[in-house]
Amino acid sequence: MTPLKSPSSALLTDLYELTMAAAYFERRLDCRATFELFIRSLPPERGYLVAAGIDAAVDYLEDLRFTERDIRFLREHPAFRTISSGFFKYLRTFRFSGEVSAVEEGSLIFAEEPVLQVTAPVIEAQVVETYLLSLINFETLVASKAARIVGAARGRRVLEFGSRRAHGPEAGVRAARAAYVGGCDATSNVMAGCLFSIPIAGTAAHSWTQVFPSERESFEALLETFPETAILLIDTYDPMAAAEIAVSLGRPVPGVRIDSGDLLDISRRVREILDRRGASATKIVASGDLNEDKIESLVQRGAPIDSFGVGTDLSTSRDAPALNVVYKLVETERGGLVDYKAKFSPDKIGWPGRKQVFRFLRQGKMDFDLIARASETHPEGEPLLRRVMENGRRVAPHRALAEVRAAAMANLMRLPKAYRALRTAPEYPVRKSTALQELLDKAREQLAAGPRGSTTS
Amino acid sequence: MTPLKSPSSALLTDLYELTMAAAYFERRLDCRATFELFIRSLPPERGYLVAAGIDAAVDYLEDLRFTERDIRFLREHPAFRTISSGFFKYLRTFRFSGEVSAVEEGSLIFAEEPVLQVTAPVIEAQVVETYLLSLINFETLVASKAARIVGAARGRRVLEFGSRRAHGPEAGVRAARAAYVGGCDATSNVMAGCLFSIPIAGTAAHSWTQVFPSERESFEALLETFPETAILLIDTYDPMAAAEIAVSLGRPVPGVRIDSGDLLDISRRVREILDRRGASATKIVASGDLNEDKIESLVQRGAPIDSFGVGTDLSTSRDAPALNVVYKLVETERGGLVDYKAKFSPDKIGWPGRKQVFRFLRQGKMDFDLIARASETHPEGEPLLRRVMENGRRVAPHRALAEVRAAAMANLMRLPKAYRALRTAPEYPVRKSTALQELLDKAREQLAAGPRGSTTS
Repeated sequence: MTPLKSPSSALLTDLYELTMAAAYFERRLDCRATFELFIRSLPPERGYLVAAGIDAAVDYLEDLRFTERDIRFLREHPAFRTISSGFFKYLRTFRFSGEVSAVEEGSLIFAEEPVLQVTAPVIEAQVVETYLLSLINFETLVASKAARIVGAARGRRVLEFGSRRAHGPEAGVRAARAAYVGGCDATSNVMAGCLFSIPIAGTAAHSWTQVFPSERESFEALLETFPETAILLIDTYDPMAAAEIAVSLGRPVPGVRIDSGDLLDISRRVREILDRRGASATKIVASGDLNEDKIESLVQRGAPIDSFGVGTDLSTSRDAPALNVVYKLVETERGGLVDYKAKFSPDKIGWPGRKQVFRFLRQGKMDFDLIARASETHPEGEPLLRRVMENGRRVAPHRALAEVRAAAMANLMRLPKAYRALRTAPEYPVRKSTALQELLDKAREQLAAGPRGSTTS
Repeated sequence: MTPLKSPSSALLTDLYELTMAAAYFERRLDCRATFELFIRSLPPERGYLVAAGIDAAVDYLEDLRFTERDIRFLREHPAFRTISSGFFKYLRTFRFSGEVSAVEEGSLIFAEEPVLQVTAPVIEAQVVETYLLSLINFETLVASKAARIVGAARGRRVLEFGSRRAHGPEAGVRAARAAYVGGCDATSNVMAGCLFSIPIAGTAAHSWTQVFPSERESFEALLETFPETAILLIDTYDPMAAAEIAVSLGRPVPGVRIDSGDLLDISRRVREILDRRGASATKIVASGDLNEDKIESLVQRGAPIDSFGVGTDLSTSRDAPALNVVYKLVETERGGLVDYKAKFSPDKIGWPGRKQVFRFLRQGKMDFDLIARASETHPEGEPLLRRVMENGRRVAPHRALAEVRAAAMANLMRLPKAYRALRTAPEYPVRKSTALQELLDKAREQLAAGPRGSTTS
């Protein structure tokens, strides 16, 4: 009964994607369509986003198919009562056969910049919308949050501990992956460690301490079992008393964790105890509802904390738990004739046509981005969108996640510091090319004149 | 490479659950332990929570096992370098064999009340912590958010449209289920419809309108394909103009959707057009970043909206994307001797011993709850925790989700209205029994005197 057991992911979509698919099929509307996925605006206090989720998106598109069980469910559902059997026959051989371009995972992206661009027969390009949005929304959200937290930690280790508060067990795995892309050093999520070769880390729970007759016995037992890696949780009763116990056991203590109270004060007092008793190699891990603001404050005030364990705020991106991410039709093509699709409403403009994002550097630092038509060339700018799928097959090589993470870290270093501020960062300059502006103006004119929302180049 | 493809859910846990398991095994610490899962405090503006996720929890516990692949990963991981082969042999036959009590899904719950109580050999009870927390955190979160939204809609239909902004595709399915438990009428998530027999609903996207040469042709095509169910999206260009087109097509229009702009004003103007042209049976669906506050305001001002489609705010519980949910050791038992486990820190008290929650009604309405020791009897109160698993097998029958939803709705009706307020609801009275208080006091005395955190009854 759980999604984990379900045989196929083709039903992981909104009903309207499939009813529209059926209607496209019934009406024989077989144009090729290009959709672009982008974030309309950045959440409050975000000066940039770190793109993630693209690798899983390509996996999904490669594997997408409808099982007999899926098809039976749809055929028997009242929503499809008026649909002919031809459609269900079509679903049986349905594959995603399109072209996809995307920014590399770990790229920095900004509002309105296409992250993913899908060109395929309209049914194929349409039905994948929900899944792609959900993947890229979530992984980008968490990678971006992680980058803020890691930045605030100024080189101290950041451990992702958020699985228990992630939005379901599967979200915990995705969050662990994205947090690593955003710069975290390790995750507590074992599945993520297994699937993505991410370093895994952990300490012990209060229950471990409580099961034993005394705190001392619980510490001894953990150190005996894991002499080189045990991190003792010292705040079950009194952290300072526990630190004294830890250093009195006559064996090296790899680390201690403090999970509550005034982390600045307690970490200082615990560090003092450890150092006084010759345990200066013992690391201090701090956790307990941490986020980038609290970490920034602890680091600025010189808390002697070696690693921060960050949970809920990271795995849910608590202050901004969703991106304003959309997937919009930008052009259709039929028999060689291209129609550019624009949308005009007071608050939302949909820019027509396939695009490319060019990034311009100045002395090795990011200067500005230019959103242009895909056909433009700007030799000085670095094009961000690269082909990742052709004819429904992956063409970009899988990259090891450590490599993706390293690329993200390098990208962040190229972003001038002001844009990396935790609060009130200025808006990074993203311009539109003259050609793109002209295409929009043309669409606007044609919309005023005749058939709505399309323009022919 | 995606979690969906992974063969087993045993690795969907925090590393420390498994290192503690290994250490319990190595130290031959084979007591039985009871853990209770509860929410420490309700999020801001929440007067109650609707429990969900328990059915999936039981499924998980019944199915939990380590595959050879899981075991190989662990055995080869440096974190387990010091662990003997006996532990990995043990994992091969590992099953959850414990007893579980839980509140029924759809029950209203409050801070500190146990939602789930697990009694099992300590290793089994420990390793399931992360998964159980994550399941119950998320489903309860969304069911509770849904109840607020459905309450604000005052009988108008509420459709869950949040899959695209849920935290990954699997979270979308879980959110759809939980939203239905919390009172939503339908979901757009097809997988949730298939797995849980939830009504599914949908309309059409802007891309549908844009693919056609004109809005009129797109409407005609959708109505021809789905004459009885088509909902036309009318805000691609101008909702009023589109409404005029819709009523000029010479066929009944089941519904229209407005997805942007001033929903009060536009719905009134569109309703006026529809009624004037004899389309008074045509329903109006509104969507676009809706939440309980916006819906309350629209309903209070009499917006002629028949159904609300709610996305991001519902599927992420945007204003409170996590619960303060914990899983705490409350007692251990070995050779018939029971140790009660309490925890005292300035801000957090851990109440010892197995508990029961008794709910007291007054004239058919909820009056107060009493958290008591499990051994107490309070014939006037309704005990909320019921046995759902024995010896690792489900003993409570599966309930159809529609039944769970109906129970939740009935429970909400029994909660006095003040506690259902969207803002500044009073705190529902939850008391502790004298016997529980006495057990805590005894634990406190023993803690002051000798071995920490345990007391023997």
